[in-house]
Amino acid sequence: MTGRVALIGCGPGDPELLTIKARRLIGEADVVVYDRLVGAPILDLVPAGIARIDVGKAAGRHVRPQAEINDLLVRLAVKGRFVARLKGGDPFVFGRGGEEAEALARHGIAVEIVPGITAAAGCAAALGMPLTHRDLASSVRFVTGHRRDDGELDLDWDGLADPDTTLVFYMGLANLPEIALRLMVAGLPGSTPAAVIVAGTTPDQRVCAGPRAELPARAIRARLEPPALVVVGRVVACASLVETPTSAVEERTDEPSSIALPR
Amino acid sequence: MTGRVALIGCGPGDPELLTIKARRLIGEADVVVYDRLVGAPILDLVPAGIARIDVGKAAGRHVRPQAEINDLLVRLAVKGRFVARLKGGDPFVFGRGGEEAEALARHGIAVEIVPGITAAAGCAAALGMPLTHRDLASSVRFVTGHRRDDGELDLDWDGLADPDTTLVFYMGLANLPEIALRLMVAGLPGSTPAAVIVAGTTPDQRVCAGPRAELPARAIRARLEPPALVVVGRVVACASLVETPTSAVEERTDEPSSIALPR
Repeated sequence: MTGRVALIGCGPGDPELLTIKARRLIGEADVVVYDRLVGAPILDLVPAGIARIDVGKAAGRHVRPQAEINDLLVRLAVKGRFVARLKGGDPFVFGRGGEEAEALARHGIAVEIVPGITAAAGCAAALGMPLTHRDLASSVRFVTGHRRDDGELDLDWDGLADPDTTLVFYMGLANLPEIALRLMVAGLPGSTPAAVIVAGTTPDQRVCAGPRAELPARAIRARLEPPALVVVGRVVACASLVETPTSAVEERTDEPSSIALPR
Repeated sequence: MTGRVALIGCGPGDPELLTIKARRLIGEADVVVYDRLVGAPILDLVPAGIARIDVGKAAGRHVRPQAEINDLLVRLAVKGRFVARLKGGDPFVFGRGGEEAEALARHGIAVEIVPGITAAAGCAAALGMPLTHRDLASSVRFVTGHRRDDGELDLDWDGLADPDTTLVFYMGLANLPEIALRLMVAGLPGSTPAAVIVAGTTPDQRVCAGPRAELPARAIRARLEPPALVVVGRVVACASLVETPTSAVEERTDEPSSIALPR
């Protein structure tokens, strides 16, 4: 009897942002396969005695090739296991869930997809920054901020440089200087508000904001490190509408452009 | 003592797609204010004895003006209540959550935003259709499919007609003929896969798929009704990778272009 696989989006980091369904399936799985972006508070929900396989790094060195992860999922399911494949964010937004689902379908293995809160939605909520707004943004666009082979970002920059659209670059920190430059060349005003959000929704959340033209230098001065989202658009000026009930005071670091917002 | 408001995204319909945090706050609220798109299975989670205010329709006639909803939230919070403001999907993706958060912040009322599974992610998971894919779509774009005053869709159609981008039009059914035509004029091939998803993730889910050029006529023949998402892009061809564990057989209606996928 063949098993099955659930590709489970685990959201942006805060374990309370798991869905009820994700929480249930994590408790039912025979084996858990997880990514680098699934944090300890979520892995702590896996029942004792259930095998957990980290595919974020192979023996602490390189990231595992995707084909190897696909094969692992197939092998586990063929043995009759119910596999919970945990992914950060949403499995179908830059999560390579499509590739894993294809590989499993080719082997006739039943797959269920459990959507998760994607990083853009989690960070937007944490910062009080709407992704769309009737007066500010009629569209929001999630864009990959890195390429498969660390090559140039091959994107439609003229189409991206639309002042009515909120742009969210996933994993965009390393390419932030290129992103800012390409958007400038394509005509997006240098004054357009922009921000880098590191580890959004977690206790380690950091935010570095500024006009599009100045953000790359500020991000370097703030010594930000991945995982990070880059958001560009008028809505960024709305950030910090939110006061959390537990802490209404923003802690600021010495670097005035780097704001550690409370959870 | 002033109260507070949580703007809570309730996801696409399936109550198991609520976040754990949304579920908790629904149980803690003093009063619940909800939209048309929040269904009965979610309202059933509100404890007995807690007031529920429907702002989706005023006395069964017109939709309430946004300013009236903002005022209601302010009045309830000023009385010291903890208000759970329930919204379909995510409050910051076409949910007008930004406007409500602004109004509350102007009155000094603490606001918390709880992100939800946006309809695009919920429908993509239900259909086994990734929103991004390394080979098919480097970007996904959420676009409003209707305008404030039912006027023309004032969008950057040339920017939208990018074959490397998945387009998701929220509330796009009424304007589907215009959307398909504008994308044609902007150069998007007529063969580009497209779909309308009605009531995604709920027992009433219906899907109508076809090439971009033929979808408007098929949607009319299938007599689809809102709420609906329109998705356009290569990834739509991946739909139905998913076999749900409970029902692996697709039920087809008489209309071959309208597929009722199992939940």
